[in-house]
Amino acid sequence: MKTVSDMMQKVRVTCPLVHHITNYVTVNDCANMCICAGGSPVMSDAAEDVPDMVKLASSLVLNIGTLNPRTVESMLIAGKKANELGIPIILDPVGVGATQYRTDTAWNLIDSLKIDVIKGNHGEISVLAGLGGRVRGVDSESGGNEIGEAARILAEKTGAIVAATGEVDYVSDGETITELSNGSPAMGSVSGTGCMLSSVVGAYVGACGVSVDSVVAAISVLNIASEVAVNEGKVYGPGSFKTKLFDAVYNLSEEDVDRLIRRK
Amino acid sequence: MKTVSDMMQKVRVTCPLVHHITNYVTVNDCANMCICAGGSPVMSDAAEDVPDMVKLASSLVLNIGTLNPRTVESMLIAGKKANELGIPIILDPVGVGATQYRTDTAWNLIDSLKIDVIKGNHGEISVLAGLGGRVRGVDSESGGNEIGEAARILAEKTGAIVAATGEVDYVSDGETITELSNGSPAMGSVSGTGCMLSSVVGAYVGACGVSVDSVVAAISVLNIASEVAVNEGKVYGPGSFKTKLFDAVYNLSEEDVDRLIRRK
Amino acid sequence: MKTVSDMMQKVRVTCPLVHHITNYVTVNDCANMCICAGGSPVMSDAAEDVPDMVKLASSLVLNIGTLNPRTVESMLIAGKKANELGIPIILDPVGVGATQYRTDTAWNLIDSLKIDVIKGNHGEISVLAGLGGRVRGVDSESGGNEIGEAARILAEKTGAIVAATGEVDYVSDGETITELSNGSPAMGSVSGTGCMLSSVVGAYVGACGVSVDSVVAAISVLNIASEVAVNEGKVYGPGSFKTKLFDAVYNLSEEDVDRLIRRK
Repeated sequence: MKTVSDMMQKVRVTCPLVHHITNYVTVNDCANMCICAGGSPVMSDAAEDVPDMVKLASSLVLNIGTLNPRTVESMLIAGKKANELGIPIILDPVGVGATQYRTDTAWNLIDSLKIDVIKGNHGEISVLAGLGGRVRGVDSESGGNEIGEAARILAEKTGAIVAATGEVDYVSDGETITELSNGSPAMGSVSGTGCMLSSVVGAYVGACGVSVDSVVAAISVLNIASEVAVNEGKVYGPGSFKTKLFDAVYNLSEEDVDRLIRRK
Repeated sequence: MKTVSDMMQKVRVTCPLVHHITNYVTVNDCANMCICAGGSPVMSDAAEDVPDMVKLASSLVLNIGTLNPRTVESMLIAGKKANELGIPIILDPVGVGATQYRTDTAWNLIDSLKIDVIKGNHGEISVLAGLGGRVRGVDSESGGNEIGEAARILAEKTGAIVAATGEVDYVSDGETITELSNGSPAMGSVSGTGCMLSSVVGAYVGACGVSVDSVVAAISVLNIASEVAVNEGKVYGPGSFKTKLFDAVYNLSEEDVDRLIRRK
Repeated sequence: MKTVSDMMQKVRVTCPLVHHITNYVTVNDCANMCICAGGSPVMSDAAEDVPDMVKLASSLVLNIGTLNPRTVESMLIAGKKANELGIPIILDPVGVGATQYRTDTAWNLIDSLKIDVIKGNHGEISVLAGLGGRVRGVDSESGGNEIGEAARILAEKTGAIVAATGEVDYVSDGETITELSNGSPAMGSVSGTGCMLSSVVGAYVGACGVSVDSVVAAISVLNIASEVAVNEGKVYGPGSFKTKLFDAVYNLSEEDVDRLIRRK
C-alpha cells in the first residue's frame, strides 16, 4: 500500500492534465481545486474538440451536473477515445435518481464506456446499486449502514472503483470496503464540494493510476484539508470556509495527511 | 403580516429545493447564496431533464442572463410543468430592453406562463412596465421617482408580484407599493447580486408562499446581510466583500433583521 | 505616450461596456475583474442576441476557452457587427495548438474578422506565429527568448496588437516590442488569470482606444495589483490570493502604477 503522502508528492511533481466535461455551476471551483491539489485542469466539451484534448490528458472526469444531449454526446466521444488510449475515466453521476434523464444518462455512460472510478454521494451510489437511495435535486438524503455495501455492489457490477461520499466515505473495488471518516461539516455548506472531489480524484488517478489507494488519497486530501481550514480559525461561514479550503489543499503537508487520516 | 424573522426560520427549517434555469456567469454564486439563505439549489436546463426536476422543487427561478433558444425552450417546458403543479415561478428578466431578443423572450415567458414574481433592476422593470427605462448591457441606468409606480403597473398588468431593485427597492402586488431601503453600495461592485437575490426570493417564496411579504423578506435578508458584512470590518474591496456577504447571509440573526429592516 | 495612470482614470470615469463571448469556466471572474478594473461587463452568446448587444459595447472580447459550434458562430456574427461599427475586438485564443478545432477556430476568427488585439500566453502566441510553441491543455509550456519576436511576427501578419503573457509579457504592434516584467508567481496558481486579463484589456481598449499603450496599461494594472495583493500580506494560498487580487485591482492607486511599472 502506497501512503497518501507518497501519492501527494507524485501528483504535485507530475502535475497531471485532467480533462473535464462537467457542469457550469461548479466548474470554476473544480478548475481551481484541481490546481490546488497539484493537477492541471482543462475543460472542453465540444464533440469537435474532445477527441484531440483527451489524448493529452492523464485522466477524464465526466460530471453530469448540468447535462444536455450535446455534452452527453461529447462525453461518449471523449470516453471512447480515453478507453482506446487507456486513459482512466472518473464518472460523477450528479443527481442520478432525481430524474429519468440523469438515470438513463448515467447508465448509458456506464454501459458504453469502461469507467474506472464512480464517485457519488450516498444517495447516488445507492440508486445506482439498486438499493433505492433517495436523491433530492442533486443532494443526497440517504445514509445508514448499507452505503458501504452499496458501493461494493456497484463496484462488482461495473468493474469500477466506487466511492460513496458523505459524513463517512466508503471506497470499494467490489471486494474490500474502505471506510474514511475525515472531513468537516462545513463542506456541506458549500456548493460543489462533491464536484471538486471528482477533480481531485482525476488528478490522483491520473498521476498514480487506478486503485483504491488513489481514490482514498484524493478523498483524504480534500477532507483533511477541510479540517485544517476550520482548525486554523478565521472561518466564519461558507464564504470564508471556501477561500480557506483552497488554501488548505494547496498548502497541505504530506506529514499531516499521514498523521490525520482516519481510515479503516 | 408575518415578520421577516418568522420567514427566515421557516426557510432555514424547511430547506426548500429551488430549481434554477439561469445564466452561466453568476450561477455558482446563486447556488451558494441559495444555500447560505437556507435553501437547496439545483440547476438543470435540458428539455429532457427539467420536467422531472421541477416536480421535486419548491420553486422555479428563470433567469435570462445568458439566454439561448435551447434554454428558453427549457424555461417554457419547466414553467408549464410548474404551473400545472402550482410551483411558484420567479422571473429575473436580465438585460430586458438592452436587446430585442431579451425583450421578446421576457414577454414570451410572461405571456406563456403564469409568473408569480418578477424581480428586476429599476431599468428592467421600467422597460417592462412600458415607462421606457434604460438598460445598458445588463445594468440599470434608470432611477427617479417613478420606479415604484412602474413596479405597480407591471404587477397589475401581469398578476405577478413585482420587485424593482436598486438603491431603494420597491415591491408591488398591483395595489400597494412597499419601499425598502436597506443595503450597501458595495453590492454594486460585485457581479450578480441581482441574480443571487432571485435565488433567495426562490427560497423564500418556495418555503413561505407567494406574497409581498416573502419577497420583502428575501430582499431584506440579502440587503441587511450586506450591511452587516460591511459593518463587521475587513471588507477592503469587492473580493473580500463577496466572501463576507456569503458568511453574513448564512449567519444573519433573525433578531437583527427585524431590528434593522427599513420598510415603508 | 499616455501614462498608465491617465488611462486608469479614463477607464474608471467612463466605465466602458465590455461584451464578452467567453468560456463558462472563468466567466464569473472575468465579470468581476472587469468591474474591479472600472469596466462594465456583459456576457451574451446567442446568435439572436449578440448583434444587438455588441452595438451597445465599447469593446468585444472573444475567448475560445470552451468553444463550440454555436458560440463560434455567435463570435463571427458579433465580430462582423463590431467591425462594421468600429468597435474593437480582443481575441483570447485559449488552448490554440492543443487541438485542431481550437487552431482552426482561432484562424477562422482571425481570417474572417479584423481583430484589434490578440492576447495569449507564450505557447499560444508562438503557435499562432508559426514558431511551434507547445500548448498543454490550456496552459503554456513555452518560454525562451523568442517570444517577443513571436508576438511581433503575429502582429505583423495579422495587423493586430499582440500580447504574449507569461513571467515576462511582450506587446508588439508588428514593429516595436515592449517588455513588461511585473506580476507575481501566485497568478499561476489561480485558474483564469489570463482570461481576466483579456477582460481588463477589453476595458482599457474600450475606454482608451486600440494602442500598444492601452494593452500595456491593462497588463500592468493586473500584474502590479497582484504584487500589491501579495505584499499587503494575508495571502496564504490561491484562495486568499484571488480574493485579494480583486480588492487590489479595485483599489489600485494610479500613482503606484506609474511608480511600480517595469517596462522596457
